[in-house]
Amino acid sequence: MPDTTGEHRLSRVEQRLADAGLHVPTLAAPVAAYVPAQRDGRHVFTSGQLPLVDGLLPVRGKVGERAGLVSPEQARQLAQTCALNALAAVKSVIGDLDQVERVVKVVGFVAADPAFFAIPMVINGASQLLQTAFGDAGQHARSAVGVAVLPLDAPVEVEILVAIRS
Amino acid sequence: MPDTTGEHRLSRVEQRLADAGLHVPTLAAPVAAYVPAQRDGRHVFTSGQLPLVDGLLPVRGKVGERAGLVSPEQARQLAQTCALNALAAVKSVIGDLDQVERVVKVVGFVAADPAFFAIPMVINGASQLLQTAFGDAGQHARSAVGVAVLPLDAPVEVEILVAIRS
Amino acid sequence: MPDTTGEHRLSRVEQRLADAGLHVPTLAAPVAAYVPAQRDGRHVFTSGQLPLVDGLLPVRGKVGERAGLVSPEQARQLAQTCALNALAAVKSVIGDLDQVERVVKVVGFVAADPAFFAIPMVINGASQLLQTAFGDAGQHARSAVGVAVLPLDAPVEVEILVAIRS
Repeated sequence: MPDTTGEHRLSRVEQRLADAGLHVPTLAAPVAAYVPAQRDGRHVFTSGQLPLVDGLLPVRGKVGERAGLVSPEQARQLAQTCALNALAAVKSVIGDLDQVERVVKVVGFVAADPAFFAIPMVINGASQLLQTAFGDAGQHARSAVGVAVLPLDAPVEVEILVAIRS
Repeated sequence: MPDTTGEHRLSRVEQRLADAGLHVPTLAAPVAAYVPAQRDGRHVFTSGQLPLVDGLLPVRGKVGERAGLVSPEQARQLAQTCALNALAAVKSVIGDLDQVERVVKVVGFVAADPAFFAIPMVINGASQLLQTAFGDAGQHARSAVGVAVLPLDAPVEVEILVAIRS
Repeated sequence: MPDTTGEHRLSRVEQRLADAGLHVPTLAAPVAAYVPAQRDGRHVFTSGQLPLVDGLLPVRGKVGERAGLVSPEQARQLAQTCALNALAAVKSVIGDLDQVERVVKVVGFVAADPAFFAIPMVINGASQLLQTAFGDAGQHARSAVGVAVLPLDAPVEVEILVAIRS
């Protein structure tokens, strides 16, 4: 039976993601001394998002080409998951992702083997998800760096800054 | 003899910190090609703050569980010092910390052994200090990452972004 | 023959740089899923800028004092190139660098040997370039950290946030 209440209507943003087989997850309850996202005027800053799925990391470790490391392609998928979690964090603050006017900035951290240089390819997993979700409004400035280690030994962490329609 | 001039009246923020045995330090004079904090409209961005006490690092090195490393608990205390220094930087720009409307964003960098994963616990030292100082207005979005090395071999560096009452 | 059309008039910012023997390059076409800089209201956020010259990295590797590493002085020069590229990114969005009211924030990432602590000296190459370009309006808050690895094995990456005259 169709939902006629309208309460479960997907935002256009989430519909575009659903058309690509993607889903904005329910946000896990915050467990530390900070919040998943903070609104400030017409902006929402998300916390750095790990690639948690149902509260668990599907894979841990450093990213690189060598055996025993998280592969670049796997890391790219994890960066996409980070971006979906970032959208969940934004949604937890503004309710409706269609209120997002623009993605402004993305910072992507890859826990990287120092011999692994394709950091941008990994973070493209997040950037492309945002363009799938928002189209041209998903275009953003971005920094991507390879760090020594991330919380919980996560391979990737992504934070975003979005502007909201006023 | 009590100070009756009012010139040394503590802000409510600093009184709350004093009640917890904490003190916003005097800011060290800037020594490099940047400023401790920059106001921009109704925001103040601090520079990355090291855990300097009277201009010196009480401890140097990387953070981890192994012998010879800075312990996680010691690093958590250093992150608190970073946050106090960040408040000193904000105060140097706006004069009165009671003008802070909200802490918006915190970024915490831990110079971490790649086998040390409890990065969030370390940066909680900064986050909890901000909640002690500002209560609910101290809740913030946050990214925390483990980096290879920090200036002067500091174990922790923290930057904050605050919004000011208009 | 002098250019009398005015079309090639340098901004005052670029004239100051020219007087110091420096040049804001033409921006390379973006090659990934993000843009070189994003305007948001009266701000421009640049992407993390690598020290590319004509689209190529003049040197790759990690920064440190030991043989085989990129020297601190060389890295400082690369940070200056990053800052010039950041100005090119800002210019690509606002057209005229004299519209910049202030540099607000700089984040500098150095791909550093964990035994190399003079991270601030390296990033001073960017900070001093910005003060050459903008004078007092170039003073900024700054974070500088040593990371494990940067895109393309670049030794330095710099992002900036500027406010635009309204």
